Amino acid sequence: MSSPEQHKDTQIRPVFFVSDGTGLTAEAYGKSLLAQFPKLEFTTRTLAFVDTQKKAVEASNQINAAHLRSGLQPVVFSTLVDDKEQDIIEHCDACVINLFHTFLGPLENCFGEESAHTQGILRTIYGEDSYQVRLDAIDYSLSHDDGVRPDQYDEADLILVGVSRCGKTPTSLYLAMNFSLKACNYPLIEEDLERDTLPDYLLQYKHKMVGLTIKPVPLSKIRRKRRPDSEYASLNVCQREIQVAQKMFDKAGIPVFDTTETSIEEIATYVVRALGISRERTGFV
Amino acid sequence: MSSPEQHKDTQIRPVFFVSDGTGLTAEAYGKSLLAQFPKLEFTTRTLAFVDTQKKAVEASNQINAAHLRSGLQPVVFSTLVDDKEQDIIEHCDACVINLFHTFLGPLENCFGEESAHTQGILRTIYGEDSYQVRLDAIDYSLSHDDGVRPDQYDEADLILVGVSRCGKTPTSLYLAMNFSLKACNYPLIEEDLERDTLPDYLLQYKHKMVGLTIKPVPLSKIRRKRRPDSEYASLNVCQREIQVAQKMFDKAGIPVFDTTETSIEEIATYVVRALGISRERTGFV
Repeated sequence: MSSPEQHKDTQIRPVFFVSDGTGLTAEAYGKSLLAQFPKLEFTTRTLAFVDTQKKAVEASNQINAAHLRSGLQPVVFSTLVDDKEQDIIEHCDACVINLFHTFLGPLENCFGEESAHTQGILRTIYGEDSYQVRLDAIDYSLSHDDGVRPDQYDEADLILVGVSRCGKTPTSLYLAMNFSLKACNYPLIEEDLERDTLPDYLLQYKHKMVGLTIKPVPLSKIRRKRRPDSEYASLNVCQREIQVAQKMFDKAGIPVFDTTETSIEEIATYVVRALGISRERTGFV
Repeated sequence: MSSPEQHKDTQIRPVFFVSDGTGLTAEAYGKSLLAQFPKLEFTTRTLAFVDTQKKAVEASNQINAAHLRSGLQPVVFSTLVDDKEQDIIEHCDACVINLFHTFLGPLENCFGEESAHTQGILRTIYGEDSYQVRLDAIDYSLSHDDGVRPDQYDEADLILVGVSRCGKTPTSLYLAMNFSLKACNYPLIEEDLERDTLPDYLLQYKHKMVGLTIKPVPLSKIRRKRRPDSEYASLNVCQREIQVAQKMFDKAGIPVFDTTETSIEEIATYVVRALGISRERTGFV
């Protein structure tokens, strides 16, 4: 039988993200803090829409139950706005991190003004227009994916160019969804790569264009999943396409980003910075 | 000439989000706090990838310049991990909110363990598999959008059903991108709505199906943008389609969510909860 010490080491600590909204902020923030404890194991759960005292009591019951089951004090990241609900959560036998209240005081001091201290306030400050701008951007990006309708690129906020499977589509969609940008993408295929330069109809948009590249070995691996044993996926072809594309990017003088082992978020953040786009992120909560 | 008091009221306070990564977390968290001061005006700027002391100095120069320009002390939300970089930022004449360090101490106490205190750690804990699962989900959702290939619905994690323009596509994409879920969607069109029930080939998947609905007036407005002066967009047709769809949902016994004036995030959070999906959010930073 393992000693209590050993048993404790293998225990998984319950973590809760509690919010009166979607819980996105609590999760993202909480997880980035937990990541600083890579030796520990956690099991996480988001309790969203906890916007009444009754729901706060239900949440606290779940937290206490997790404590009993695991034998470990849970961690609770809370962005609850309502004081009474927060109080209910703080009465759990848990380590409660109050993401909302902690910084409100310092901000009130900085501004010399009291906060509204109101639940659901984010929803009221985003108007109908913001929603529509975002949906229009998603519509545009979907219907201009993969080189479709380059005759409509006047309307695009930005164009991603690169060889097949270097991350153009997911990044375009991410930019549409999270920045409300009409992002489209153009794949460099065989016939494009036989020329010296990017096509003229693309070059006129180089002020809003970013080249995406990737290392040949990972590209070959990705392509092999889609078309195993193909020329398309062979290391030779991948190397050649990447080199030719890079020359075209250099000639056009557009910024280039290497997407090897980077997340969609990182690629998107780079693209927005490289093009000097000041559009705000539009994630709603 | 306006008095100093009046002049101060109309000033726009600069806000910076400073991060050694994408700045996503700092932005989301910072904005939800700023939203509690709805009478004040802010101009926000994200300084991402501040991962060296040199970049921290450049960032602090920008912050100080913004102070001079606006005449107001900027607010800086920082998630910098490196102590020296954080120190450089804290020497700005700004109200610096330290999102990273503030809660690290309490967590260290809770766990009885020191934190790694390492930059870029999130990137190392997400393996190649996570990236691929996410990309596969996006691929699947794109290629099964709008009722395409219902013969492949075995593979879907969830199916959204509803009349045209009620939010199915953006929500599916969001679920793929942010939860790595193979989310697909099926539009209820004229011939479906002429029947009493959802098609049989859909009903076999009702355990993983959510109905989306919307109020008739907003639906009509949305449809009018796409096809002005059409039957499709008329209030009568919208009302009828919504009513018929609702009866089908009730008959099938699937959960239904009203997407009127709700964000994609809220719809997605509801869907995941309603289906009891425990998949973690997979936003990378």
